[in-house]
Amino acid sequence: MNEQPRRRDTRLFPRPLDIANGRVDMTHGGGGRAMAQLVSEIFGQAFDNEFLSQGNDMAVMPPADGRLVMSTDGYVISPLFFPGGDIGSLAVHGTINDVAMSGATPLYLSASFIIEEGLPLADLRRIVLSMADASRAAGVPIVTGDTKVVERGKADGVFISTAGVGVLADGLEIGGDRIQEGDAILVSGSIGDHGIAILSKRENLDFETAIESDSAPLHRMIRAMVEAEPEIHCLRDPTRGGLAATLNELANQSGVGLVLEEEALPIKPAVRGACELLGIDPLGVANEGKLLAFCPKDKAEALLAVMQAAPFGSDAAIIGHVVADPLKLVRLETSFGSERVVEWLNGEQLPRIC
Amino acid sequence: MNEQPRRRDTRLFPRPLDIANGRVDMTHGGGGRAMAQLVSEIFGQAFDNEFLSQGNDMAVMPPADGRLVMSTDGYVISPLFFPGGDIGSLAVHGTINDVAMSGATPLYLSASFIIEEGLPLADLRRIVLSMADASRAAGVPIVTGDTKVVERGKADGVFISTAGVGVLADGLEIGGDRIQEGDAILVSGSIGDHGIAILSKRENLDFETAIESDSAPLHRMIRAMVEAEPEIHCLRDPTRGGLAATLNELANQSGVGLVLEEEALPIKPAVRGACELLGIDPLGVANEGKLLAFCPKDKAEALLAVMQAAPFGSDAAIIGHVVADPLKLVRLETSFGSERVVEWLNGEQLPRIC
Repeated sequence: MNEQPRRRDTRLFPRPLDIANGRVDMTHGGGGRAMAQLVSEIFGQAFDNEFLSQGNDMAVMPPADGRLVMSTDGYVISPLFFPGGDIGSLAVHGTINDVAMSGATPLYLSASFIIEEGLPLADLRRIVLSMADASRAAGVPIVTGDTKVVERGKADGVFISTAGVGVLADGLEIGGDRIQEGDAILVSGSIGDHGIAILSKRENLDFETAIESDSAPLHRMIRAMVEAEPEIHCLRDPTRGGLAATLNELANQSGVGLVLEEEALPIKPAVRGACELLGIDPLGVANEGKLLAFCPKDKAEALLAVMQAAPFGSDAAIIGHVVADPLKLVRLETSFGSERVVEWLNGEQLPRIC
Repeated sequence: MNEQPRRRDTRLFPRPLDIANGRVDMTHGGGGRAMAQLVSEIFGQAFDNEFLSQGNDMAVMPPADGRLVMSTDGYVISPLFFPGGDIGSLAVHGTINDVAMSGATPLYLSASFIIEEGLPLADLRRIVLSMADASRAAGVPIVTGDTKVVERGKADGVFISTAGVGVLADGLEIGGDRIQEGDAILVSGSIGDHGIAILSKRENLDFETAIESDSAPLHRMIRAMVEAEPEIHCLRDPTRGGLAATLNELANQSGVGLVLEEEALPIKPAVRGACELLGIDPLGVANEGKLLAFCPKDKAEALLAVMQAAPFGSDAAIIGHVVADPLKLVRLETSFGSERVVEWLNGEQLPRIC
């Protein structure tokens, strides 16, 4: 992503982009002047920061103190705009969260845009401004980027891949293979909001209570958590595949069994109702602003209090515990004393939402 | 990209993937067991390294000494396989090069895959193995990744976005805004090879001499260059839009004029012939394994010798010089004493090749 003149260079770009009526065309990906103008007038002006404005194909930042952490995610969500967010804010929050789940402080993001010919420039700008807002609110700048344009019918509006870099302080060892028998399982808030918000918008379902995506940056909550309790064993965001997939993955990774208490799961009534209507298990629905935490049982209440006091954590809850289990099953205990096995979502999400 | 069991876990994955006959389907992006198997049996086995095998959504690496450098690029090339490379090797080389053009040492890559439903698993594995080979040969591991699958007709086989992180030693200040009047302009080898290789394959053109993409990692050449001559002002790879777009961009960024000597430009006879046949200016054709360097004139011969002795630099040449020019033009001087202005490729590349 190249130099961002603060004022339009009228020799290079005699006319401003027609953002109200224009559409992305193949010239915007061609490496020439049209691309330079798109990059300058849409991306450069929105993301503006000292690193991006170096104007090279890479950004140079100061040395960073601590272990390096890196993550990436591709965002292919449809529709591009949904209640509670859009593909742009999601692409910022999701990658910040993936970096932070190590306990690290996210520092920088990169963004690769693959745009379908014909995308309205107004939509692109709306997405980019939303990314810029999300990035500023989180304090994690987008320092470098790339734009490609593919022919109509060869993408789905726009795909965004973000990568994130962070630094991890000494003493923190948080990972999916570190969960121990006896750990408590905590979740930072209500589950299923994101997936149900997307499905409702896609299927034009009208629920009495509006359901919004929970897309949010969790790095500040995580910082408060690791400062209060460095002995956290694992943090993970239950995104694609929901709690069901994430917990099965973790049970396998750590070689343990997980027991959830159905009554303890925070699920909003509107989400529960929508799941019943759609015939979907809320445990299989994607979240974008929630995390699961595993810590020694005797630290759980204190950690819960920290989460509940942090941004996006007010509905945090202790939802289960870790047991020895050679079969590495995830089980749900109901209030009636029965239990069922929570299966790893085997096939596809129907319909795909990410 | 999650845990990579070295042996297939027969409880989780009773049958191996049918790589010879299978195709990517929507379940491979669903977050469930099918995705875990794809990630394990295709990505995990090919990329295997100590960071990726941590098995979390992010990778934790040791502290890095020096300024941080970050870059990203999206790869949307069609066809996926071409003479001299494929989308996988290109996605490794391109991002390594973008990081290295700052003078930095590339350390780590991330990879985000957006796969079209129906892609043969054999093609995916071929691409992934090629990435793994390119990454190992360059000594820059792919430490984290992500896989999404979109419906048939919503992508073009596969798109790959890689991001790269590197470290930059003190004393190096290399950038597009640092070119000075009097600098010499060097190129590391013949131009136009990549674009013509792609076009030939796409249009089924048969030339007498096979033309191969020049896709290559340039970080070792750059390291030799900055060690020999830390006063290099600018390095840039003339990819999309070729020398014409890149030189115009740099002339604008540094506020200078650039003068090329036509006779000095290294162009292979087969590429020159193909360009004439196709009616294309070789200066506008993309390169993937070449760099432009700008340094004080009195250092140019020494730098040229270093480049010619380095990997992928044997055909390096001094091709021009930098002048004061308020119009910031790029001019080409012919052997007959005439000159023409090299225009910034205004519109699209026809057809799109990246």
